[in-house]
Amino acid sequence: MKWNRITAKDNAQIKAVVLLRNSAKERKEKKLAVLEGLRLCTDALDNAIRFAQLFISDSAQEKYAQQIEKFAENSSVCFQIPDSLFLKISDTDSPQGILSVFEIPENKPFEKADGFYIGLENLSDPSNLGAVSRTAEALGINGIILTGNSVDPYAPKSLRASMGTLLRMPLFITDDLISAARSMGLKTYGCVVNRDALPITDIPFAGGSLLLIGNEANGLTETTKANCDVCITIPMTGSAESLNAAAAGAIAMWEMVRRNQYE
Amino acid sequence: MKWNRITAKDNAQIKAVVLLRNSAKERKEKKLAVLEGLRLCTDALDNAIRFAQLFISDSAQEKYAQQIEKFAENSSVCFQIPDSLFLKISDTDSPQGILSVFEIPENKPFEKADGFYIGLENLSDPSNLGAVSRTAEALGINGIILTGNSVDPYAPKSLRASMGTLLRMPLFITDDLISAARSMGLKTYGCVVNRDALPITDIPFAGGSLLLIGNEANGLTETTKANCDVCITIPMTGSAESLNAAAAGAIAMWEMVRRNQYE
Repeated sequence: MKWNRITAKDNAQIKAVVLLRNSAKERKEKKLAVLEGLRLCTDALDNAIRFAQLFISDSAQEKYAQQIEKFAENSSVCFQIPDSLFLKISDTDSPQGILSVFEIPENKPFEKADGFYIGLENLSDPSNLGAVSRTAEALGINGIILTGNSVDPYAPKSLRASMGTLLRMPLFITDDLISAARSMGLKTYGCVVNRDALPITDIPFAGGSLLLIGNEANGLTETTKANCDVCITIPMTGSAESLNAAAAGAIAMWEMVRRNQYE
Repeated sequence: MKWNRITAKDNAQIKAVVLLRNSAKERKEKKLAVLEGLRLCTDALDNAIRFAQLFISDSAQEKYAQQIEKFAENSSVCFQIPDSLFLKISDTDSPQGILSVFEIPENKPFEKADGFYIGLENLSDPSNLGAVSRTAEALGINGIILTGNSVDPYAPKSLRASMGTLLRMPLFITDDLISAARSMGLKTYGCVVNRDALPITDIPFAGGSLLLIGNEANGLTETTKANCDVCITIPMTGSAESLNAAAAGAIAMWEMVRRNQYE
């Protein structure tokens, strides 16, 4: 039986999980991240993500016995811990008592990039990353490219806000969006707030397109604006400042796929 | 000089502001709401909203003297209070020290409703209300209709998330969306998640259109679905569940105005 019991607060495994939860650097080094809650862990299971470790609180073990059995089958090591100790590893005040540690998938470019993609440069808010990835999934976008200095997609907040989307969608992290796009043969469309840029409604998007959205406050970097294939803009009669990154992303992704997929 | 000094924690004015900040019922009864911060108060001023009361912390009085003079000219009564007391009325941990109480504008139907409108039924999250209203403003939507059991648009969280948009845009609150729309002569388009509904891309939206978006978890009520003029849907190849209310609202509002305003 692979179940282990931990009760000590200063247990090394407990400390390791807390570190993974809190530190992007630690996640990057160990290539491990943390998933919390029944829903996210089930999502991971459905997407063939194996758990390196499973942590279950005493209450959860009783309450979700059936589901936990499945999680345990999918886990290399399982720990059952007191509810009070679970609070220490949990990211929420009233946890469900289910937490897994999983191996971050290998970071590699998309193999046959002939669909529609979204690229996010220096996105800083996990809620925005979550919202954009959910919209991308709903609209049938084929993958997300993210710059390395964006918010960590494997941070607990990002994973939660994405409702598991970030586990389900192809995701590639790179420090050089434009070069990565070129080597995958993608045409790059940089979304800017500039009435002189081409209106997005004029662009005949085809398969192999990458839409680029920039940082919430500053937009795309000057380098990316200068090096992308086309700078495009969402035409607006009102104040462009009012459109936040998630809404701009939703409208731009919709325009990219609308004529190809829905009309 | 209309400046008054308050130092007592149990001062009646201080208690009244805290109540207005915390209670939707109190705001409704008194027809007053609270605005906090330099940005929101400036927005209000720019939109000819008068302040019934102005509260300024000692630090803010020094730091923002010039702007505060303008606020004071626009206020019936002004209070300067110690920083420690300002913390009591503030909604944030590190306040700027500027807070005003303003009269909630009279709630009345739009007079000449020949533009494009968004109706929100039972929206429960102030962040979503804020996001939808910001997108509406950016896209040139002419007004927002909100059901009375939605989140209070005059709650501090809603006002903050809207970045002042809710002060700038025509807003009508009603308990009966459909009747209100009919009496204004608006055609109602209910957004639903149902692949049998008409695709939004097939709808020839004209001036006098009201798009209806429902609650985050439950969508539009059965009554509204049954009584709106047309049920429409955003076509999606992916999981519809993934599209949150703010993203669905952004795409639907964009489709409503796109062909009329941007092509």
